[in-house]
Amino acid sequence: MTDRIQEFLRNRRREGQDTEPCLVVDLEIVRDNYQTFAKALPDSRVFYAVKANPAPEVLSLLASLGSCFDTATVAEIEMALAAGATPDRVSFGNTIKKRRDVAYASSCGVRMFSVDAFEELDKVLAETSEPGTVCVRIFHDCTGADWPLSRKFGCPVDTAAELLTIATDAGWTNGVSFHVGSQQRHLHAWNEALTATAHLFADAQSQGASPSFVNLGGGFPGTYLDQMPPIHAYGTAISTALNRAFGNSLKQLYIEPGRYMVADAGVLRTEVVLVSQRSRDDAQRWVYIDCGKFHGLAETMDEAIRYRIRTEHDGGETGPVAIAGPTCDSADILYEKTDYQLPLALKEGDHLDILSTGAYTTTYSSVGFNGFPPLAEHYI
Amino acid sequence: MTDRIQEFLRNRRREGQDTEPCLVVDLEIVRDNYQTFAKALPDSRVFYAVKANPAPEVLSLLASLGSCFDTATVAEIEMALAAGATPDRVSFGNTIKKRRDVAYASSCGVRMFSVDAFEELDKVLAETSEPGTVCVRIFHDCTGADWPLSRKFGCPVDTAAELLTIATDAGWTNGVSFHVGSQQRHLHAWNEALTATAHLFADAQSQGASPSFVNLGGGFPGTYLDQMPPIHAYGTAISTALNRAFGNSLKQLYIEPGRYMVADAGVLRTEVVLVSQRSRDDAQRWVYIDCGKFHGLAETMDEAIRYRIRTEHDGGETGPVAIAGPTCDSADILYEKTDYQLPLALKEGDHLDILSTGAYTTTYSSVGFNGFPPLAEHYI
Repeated sequence: MTDRIQEFLRNRRREGQDTEPCLVVDLEIVRDNYQTFAKALPDSRVFYAVKANPAPEVLSLLASLGSCFDTATVAEIEMALAAGATPDRVSFGNTIKKRRDVAYASSCGVRMFSVDAFEELDKVLAETSEPGTVCVRIFHDCTGADWPLSRKFGCPVDTAAELLTIATDAGWTNGVSFHVGSQQRHLHAWNEALTATAHLFADAQSQGASPSFVNLGGGFPGTYLDQMPPIHAYGTAISTALNRAFGNSLKQLYIEPGRYMVADAGVLRTEVVLVSQRSRDDAQRWVYIDCGKFHGLAETMDEAIRYRIRTEHDGGETGPVAIAGPTCDSADILYEKTDYQLPLALKEGDHLDILSTGAYTTTYSSVGFNGFPPLAEHYI
Repeated sequence: MTDRIQEFLRNRRREGQDTEPCLVVDLEIVRDNYQTFAKALPDSRVFYAVKANPAPEVLSLLASLGSCFDTATVAEIEMALAAGATPDRVSFGNTIKKRRDVAYASSCGVRMFSVDAFEELDKVLAETSEPGTVCVRIFHDCTGADWPLSRKFGCPVDTAAELLTIATDAGWTNGVSFHVGSQQRHLHAWNEALTATAHLFADAQSQGASPSFVNLGGGFPGTYLDQMPPIHAYGTAISTALNRAFGNSLKQLYIEPGRYMVADAGVLRTEVVLVSQRSRDDAQRWVYIDCGKFHGLAETMDEAIRYRIRTEHDGGETGPVAIAGPTCDSADILYEKTDYQLPLALKEGDHLDILSTGAYTTTYSSVGFNGFPPLAEHYI
């Protein structure tokens, strides 16, 4: 919670505009995060994962700082270009692309595409006007990530070697990507993946392929309830792992932070709608707030991401709570199993601030489940 | 899939408008469902659960047929009124309401409110202009529901008896509601809940309360992969259970179908974006479509709701598939554990139709996760 966010929220309250929940993002934190990240991993080219937060204010700032952009759709490509990125700084990183969207991206000048299947590489080779860069995503088992990514994406290394060979034969620059899972706490996750990638490079080269880069994906953490290593520790661990696996042979390194760049810059202000006990002698209270799983807090699914929570009564005596959203859907519970404790003084009408909510919140918000409007957002 | 929906989709294709997924709802099915439901449970007053599908076309049709409306928010109250319902036909059924929203609902003429906590009853008594009807929701363990509802809502029966007594003393008409869970397959679920409610009525009466109605909630099914009893079997089971529990003593019966009314009226047309195998000798294919968990198919969470799927190749040889949405989020998998089989001929660019998607789809859709637009919807 920065001074700037606090001041914004105070003004909003004074002006009587705090009737609905909202996310406030401090762009100075985004700027700091970009610079800290670039310093921690100085030899990598940064592709910001637009899906983490595609607000024009965030994209314009990152474009001005020199960031490239990892996009999931034509819409995200257009957002990145509108924010000032040139097409050579945009990667179409989704491995699931409509054929016509590959063609459209190519017509916009985008030259970098991700694939993890023969069928997808076929589309990329067929629908583009000239050879570019293809990134082959391998499957990697991402132990240690709070939000795993692995089942849906990535091919085995033998398939990857074939794909790299086809891409090389077609005249495309090619390399390998993996994703260790979002909010990855284990520094050795990259180590294992890089060792596997180096073996794959050797296999592919023996088949005539010439992979030249590694894309490290994302996985760098926001600051939630659990302590995570600092970003420079990730940088050191990755640098060591790269040296061990590749020596000096790697031509280019890409990296796709999303969460790290924006999570800690955001505070989600909510209002307590109801604090109730199931019966008079029940110690656990249920705290219902006006923002839930369907209005931005989707990552509380299975209580995966455990946000830090602040109230105006912090410091006072606390007791155990379950925390739930305002809809009539019983899946709209944020935390019931995690041991959250909130002040006993907390009551209806109070504010409850959820920290580090700048990533993976606004765009998850539903269009209007139960009649609730989408999450409001402010960039300062 | 009705003839009218088929014709609509054919025309849409012919006009080249089938570039994005869309939901098509046949209002004649909604009309039939309302009439069938009213016949199956003739002694109940029907409150359509607006959250299941709040499209103006659906609400206007149901208002014209005489339905009342169960709403979750002020926004849903306004939608019901705009559709032609008078305020006496609107219930503010969410047990989590902002104080100012109770006052606003009261100013609109809404007189029926649900509560499950002392704190919430306080709001209702304090913020309304005259006594109305209060519905006390009890906790009920909903075994047999594909989408359970119970952990977040409802109070124990001893708390309920106190709430009924307070409401009676304040001059409010009062009664009890429960919810057996959405898509409830066990007919005896209502039996157990009604027996518990009858005991509660006796306890409350001994404390001076005068509860006069039961609200049976919802839970009536759409037609998904698993066979469910027909609606008249629910009607018979509930009628028998009511007689056993209450004899002729119950003054009024309310019921809140949502899913049943609209689910089977809708077809979600999607496009296959990619069919891939993880490796050349892998029997399971991954079928990626252009609509997923974050664009309407939220109820595939934990593979809870298992939709019926149709393709243009039905009848041909099939093989096992996992089915996933188009976003870069690995949680965006619809079915990986359920044994879905789809035609071997299915390929990129084909349509894949998801049946009985008229309920709990459109409003769950995200505002734009990964840059995908909200789910388009058509009412015919």
